[in-house]
Amino acid sequence: MDLIKKPTTGMKDITPQEMELRNYVMNEIRKTYSSFGFTQIETPAVEHIENLCSKQGGENEKLIFKILKRGEKLNLADAKEENDLVDSGLRYDLTVPLCRFYANNAANLPKPFKALQMGNVWRADRPQKGRFRQFMQCDIDILGEASNLAEIELVLATTTLLGRVGFKGFKVHINDRRILKAMASYSGFAESDYDNVFIQLDKMDKIGLDGVCECLTEDGFSVDAIAKYRALFEEFNKQDDKLSFLKETLGEYIEGNAADNLKEIFSAVEASMAADCEIVFDPTLVRGMSYYTGTIFEIEMKELNCSVAGGGRYDKMIGKFTGQDTPACGFSIGFERIITIMMEQGVKAPGSTEKTAFLVEKGVDGERLGEIIAKAQALRAEGKTVLVARMNKNKKFQKEQLEADGYTQFEDFYREALKN
Amino acid sequence: MDLIKKPTTGMKDITPQEMELRNYVMNEIRKTYSSFGFTQIETPAVEHIENLCSKQGGENEKLIFKILKRGEKLNLADAKEENDLVDSGLRYDLTVPLCRFYANNAANLPKPFKALQMGNVWRADRPQKGRFRQFMQCDIDILGEASNLAEIELVLATTTLLGRVGFKGFKVHINDRRILKAMASYSGFAESDYDNVFIQLDKMDKIGLDGVCECLTEDGFSVDAIAKYRALFEEFNKQDDKLSFLKETLGEYIEGNAADNLKEIFSAVEASMAADCEIVFDPTLVRGMSYYTGTIFEIEMKELNCSVAGGGRYDKMIGKFTGQDTPACGFSIGFERIITIMMEQGVKAPGSTEKTAFLVEKGVDGERLGEIIAKAQALRAEGKTVLVARMNKNKKFQKEQLEADGYTQFEDFYREALKN
Repeated sequence: MDLIKKPTTGMKDITPQEMELRNYVMNEIRKTYSSFGFTQIETPAVEHIENLCSKQGGENEKLIFKILKRGEKLNLADAKEENDLVDSGLRYDLTVPLCRFYANNAANLPKPFKALQMGNVWRADRPQKGRFRQFMQCDIDILGEASNLAEIELVLATTTLLGRVGFKGFKVHINDRRILKAMASYSGFAESDYDNVFIQLDKMDKIGLDGVCECLTEDGFSVDAIAKYRALFEEFNKQDDKLSFLKETLGEYIEGNAADNLKEIFSAVEASMAADCEIVFDPTLVRGMSYYTGTIFEIEMKELNCSVAGGGRYDKMIGKFTGQDTPACGFSIGFERIITIMMEQGVKAPGSTEKTAFLVEKGVDGERLGEIIAKAQALRAEGKTVLVARMNKNKKFQKEQLEADGYTQFEDFYREALKN
Repeated sequence: MDLIKKPTTGMKDITPQEMELRNYVMNEIRKTYSSFGFTQIETPAVEHIENLCSKQGGENEKLIFKILKRGEKLNLADAKEENDLVDSGLRYDLTVPLCRFYANNAANLPKPFKALQMGNVWRADRPQKGRFRQFMQCDIDILGEASNLAEIELVLATTTLLGRVGFKGFKVHINDRRILKAMASYSGFAESDYDNVFIQLDKMDKIGLDGVCECLTEDGFSVDAIAKYRALFEEFNKQDDKLSFLKETLGEYIEGNAADNLKEIFSAVEASMAADCEIVFDPTLVRGMSYYTGTIFEIEMKELNCSVAGGGRYDKMIGKFTGQDTPACGFSIGFERIITIMMEQGVKAPGSTEKTAFLVEKGVDGERLGEIIAKAQALRAEGKTVLVARMNKNKKFQKEQLEADGYTQFEDFYREALKN
């Protein structure tokens, strides 16, 4: 029986053309983020099932690729449920493993620690166009920095990077989970309902304020609370200085210094951001993960009307590993989306070295072949790319193929040359 | 309950220091191999269980991390054996996935196709010092090239690479499975016993010819066959031109042109190889995998007396996917071993850019912080690394830590500066 040619469901093979682009972007990521003092780390793809199922991952915990116990530990006869069979799984994000890494290695890491991670994650999502079950995530995180210097540096690093790989015109949406909560609390929603309220709020850009209020009504929330929530947004939309308005209106409902904190981030980021970018306060920005504790952000590519990066502050996750909370803030770029856009736009990795093909007729061997290869080695040592290949019968077609792969110089070696 | 800090059994976290070295080596690999015309591809970490358990992987098939079926496909109540529960697993090497990749994408690939792969593989081996259950493999393969041009280029590419990352004095051991078989056949061993004979032969460098013959005797092989095998090696060891001796002695026992083929590889490789390297014919070289069909090779680092790369020709594997055999030959370097050796030798990745740290006293915020960050951004745009961090109370200690991380320039920013 023949073996299976296609990749497993929802996963993909990466061809040389795509890989060249991916390598180029990964290299720019490394260069740019390292200029901000981020250093790269890596965690294993396989993570403890206990860590993956610790309620840090929200909906992603339903999508885990689980790994069977091995050897004597696997007791099929007595297994009553799935979790009796597994001891680990593939990581579904890089944030949970990062916190484990930090808990495990903190003694040897600088404080604050600025981490760059580029690695695959796996989610058994329903297969759909452009979404894969294995995909690269690219995260930067600052651990141990409580002040908004973390947020400022993360936003600037990410926008700088996007600019370096050729994107323009970003809109950085920024909010704070504490303002989200204050708005809900001020309106009279119960704390236990916040997450459900935010699920509806998150639809604002698609269905508008009317739509959000309809959804909240359908969900059976108090009419008074919905009316007050609506009035708050209507009033908010009329304001010039939206953040000051909310700060004043919500007053004591806002935990900590969330509003002033955002103002500082604005002023510092605006002082340095590229002219074609803007940063806006967006109280409808929710971000899915419930682990966020403060600032949250997302970068929209205005031209394409899609989000290409997102993140936020999660000051409580490391404490789950160490028993002691550590401030943490991160930003993740949508690596796969960026690659997809670049490929659709026909972007190619900037030209590398000159590529030469030596085509060697069949029968050229022994000492003569040794000489040809020595010549190729000399050119390679000078930094050139030299392909040594056997000449095909249809040499014209072979050269066309090689030209399509970027070869511009050709040298042919025939048996007859021996006679010269 | 606290979550688990350590990585899963047998896996490891990679720190920034190690990652820097790994990135440097990976970059040299990409540069060097691409100068030989190799292009990089990637396959998913998750592979069909059918492909992984197809007897291509030998002993590695016992070490697979298997992945549980998901959703309705998982029927725990009716499952009788392990394989009822799983549909996929983590790849244990890059060769099986490469053949699947080639079968799946051949129409869009150049012929011959020169592939570079760098990727993690997983084996649930017994944990031991220096061996991990997730490790990086780095393979080059030439698919669709029947002539020994493939072997020649692979050996030269690999030795060139090892030289570029600072290693010296390699010994390339080379043999051909067909010569191994001819020697066994000539001596009178049955074809079904070859693999067991080769397992003992493989111990030659540790236990010598006497030891190998003792083991064969213990295994119960024919006394005559063992005596003839011993005599063949004794005679062989006396020869100057060992390959010609075997060619003449074994005659028709040798399938195809194995001996002449090796001679050609020698002459072409010797014409180009670095002066401190040697290539030797080694009829005791076995290589574990039974999928090899022709040439096999291994590179020994003489100084360290360990093997750092190995590979061979496997002309029958792609046919398992396509029904049609395609010539294939590959070389894998021991990436993890190379990194371990470099770390033990204290090798550091060549110095990057100048690194500056801006230390900002607490309380410096707003516009002033914006100015400081703008200054950092300007330096980063020039290619410099600038870390902006809050000044610790113990600034002296903080600077020492930063110096240890490679920061050489410091600039301090105090609140008082506002008053100037």
